[in-house]
Amino acid sequence: MTDKTVLPGVLIASGNWAPEPWAEPFASEPERPLAIWPDVPDRAAIHYVLAWRPPAEAFADLPNLKAVFSLGAGVDHVVGNTALPDVPIVRVVDADLTTRMTEWVTLQVLLHHRQHLAYTRQQAAHQWRELRQPVAHDVRVGIMGLGELVRVGIMGLGELGRDAVEVLARLGFQVSGWSRSAKDIAGIECFHGEDGLTAFLGRTDILVALVPLTPDTRGILNASVFDRLARNGALGGPVLINAGRGGLQVDADILAALDDGRLIGASLDVFEPEPLAADSPFWGHPRVVVTPHVAASSEASVLAVGIHRQILDFEAGKPLGNLVDVARGY
Amino acid sequence: MTDKTVLPGVLIASGNWAPEPWAEPFASEPERPLAIWPDVPDRAAIHYVLAWRPPAEAFADLPNLKAVFSLGAGVDHVVGNTALPDVPIVRVVDADLTTRMTEWVTLQVLLHHRQHLAYTRQQAAHQWRELRQPVAHDVRVGIMGLGELVRVGIMGLGELGRDAVEVLARLGFQVSGWSRSAKDIAGIECFHGEDGLTAFLGRTDILVALVPLTPDTRGILNASVFDRLARNGALGGPVLINAGRGGLQVDADILAALDDGRLIGASLDVFEPEPLAADSPFWGHPRVVVTPHVAASSEASVLAVGIHRQILDFEAGKPLGNLVDVARGY
Repeated sequence: MTDKTVLPGVLIASGNWAPEPWAEPFASEPERPLAIWPDVPDRAAIHYVLAWRPPAEAFADLPNLKAVFSLGAGVDHVVGNTALPDVPIVRVVDADLTTRMTEWVTLQVLLHHRQHLAYTRQQAAHQWRELRQPVAHDVRVGIMGLGELVRVGIMGLGELGRDAVEVLARLGFQVSGWSRSAKDIAGIECFHGEDGLTAFLGRTDILVALVPLTPDTRGILNASVFDRLARNGALGGPVLINAGRGGLQVDADILAALDDGRLIGASLDVFEPEPLAADSPFWGHPRVVVTPHVAASSEASVLAVGIHRQILDFEAGKPLGNLVDVARGY
Repeated sequence: MTDKTVLPGVLIASGNWAPEPWAEPFASEPERPLAIWPDVPDRAAIHYVLAWRPPAEAFADLPNLKAVFSLGAGVDHVVGNTALPDVPIVRVVDADLTTRMTEWVTLQVLLHHRQHLAYTRQQAAHQWRELRQPVAHDVRVGIMGLGELVRVGIMGLGELGRDAVEVLARLGFQVSGWSRSAKDIAGIECFHGEDGLTAFLGRTDILVALVPLTPDTRGILNASVFDRLARNGALGGPVLINAGRGGLQVDADILAALDDGRLIGASLDVFEPEPLAADSPFWGHPRVVVTPHVAASSEASVLAVGIHRQILDFEAGKPLGNLVDVARGY
């Protein structure tokens, strides 16, 4: 399939990310043309684009393009591209990325569940005071009453959502899941579609958003959703955790809900735009944890090795895996 | 075994804890004498003491004492009692208590691993900056090099230690354990005794102490132990997490190690004495998380139900479970 002396070329269009680590694995193949956007000397040589927030022009005039590899788990930055060519789009699926996301989600769930922000304020005041602590475990139902349960709802049941579900259930939380289409996870109550959303929200104290950003999900974390979250929770109110995309959330609705108690806390890793504006009220909010889009930041050099391997497999005749459904948006 | 009209009596000697929730389950038995220390009208009626930090006098002159129930998972406050009678000492073993401890340990491990204190400082400064994040997962060995691994060492492999080991391993950390006597946990490297301590510490980046306080372990978290912790860790230095007892730690050694980088962070839930002194340097230390002995604070009313059930079982002829080895100290 490949010429002996010239291999199919690669274009790295990595937006605000440094291209070097993505180029690393290709260094061992001097016969493979490697271009770093916007410097593309021979557009006909490019068979693959490695893309993170690629400008529309990065896809223009590539007559031999075979596939686009998204450099992040979310693919909205690619499928939303107005010049997206009709070639397979491959998402990154990587154990390291999943592990990191589960770490971040677990940290944030435990941090709110164990009232860490309140304890931090007490520490700053040199104050030794035990706060009443609800239990996570469902075996307490009979003894403690329904109000004692902390119910975590995971919105989005892809690779990342499923792993978080498993760890949080192991920790003793009552976990349920919601996704666009019906999913089945052993031991977990799963809801789906617009019809299932109200029931899902009504049994959720801690809402974790791991849904892809699509036209359907843009702004889904809004007042109407917060209004439907459980009110009887042991935490004193619901918590929002968003590790999906900033475009999922309506900032003004989150702030209003925090003000009037429809939310008692939030952990936000993603914003629109990023970086978060220096004057955003999220930074200084006493009940908001802000992290700079690091929930599942993998080492680029690790992910790049996986992408390089997929390209070699593809060139050896194997089909591409983890394909994006562009019409669906993820 | 019991008189029809008068049941064996109970004395609650709960130190600084409110006695009411511990008394609750016995309210349904008006024929069972119930005394709250120091008010013990009929000492001969007392067959059981429910004890938390009991004064020596609480055990004096109880001719019909059959058993002592410790109200906390640690039993140092009972076995160290100078007037301890020669009757079975029963420890609390409860799923709720284990779940809570695992939550706290997991939260603290993730908090240090994911550099939460640094991100909190950045948030306060409205600063959007990604910090280099080591991976937890051992599948990265070959790719990332040894320095990339975060190795958690659990000191103490009782009920609580074993559960924490399981959850942290599921999260992808390389977990090892150390205990006084040899233990065997599938998939976990276990060390034991004084001979195993140096090897255990040498492969540990995050040290979690869940050992009982005994004459042997008093002050075990000291400079000599910190000196032997791994120096090559991806976190930039070792972290100490103590959820055992304050008596395990040498405060001055922890502070000195934090100052010169032999420790880069600590989470401490226990102190000697408690409450922690208002002028303790731990409160304001930028790399120390202080919580007021709440890691595994269970609802007293939940634990009390379990103790009441054990008493009924014992009176029905069943042997007492979860007995303490007083000579060993736990």
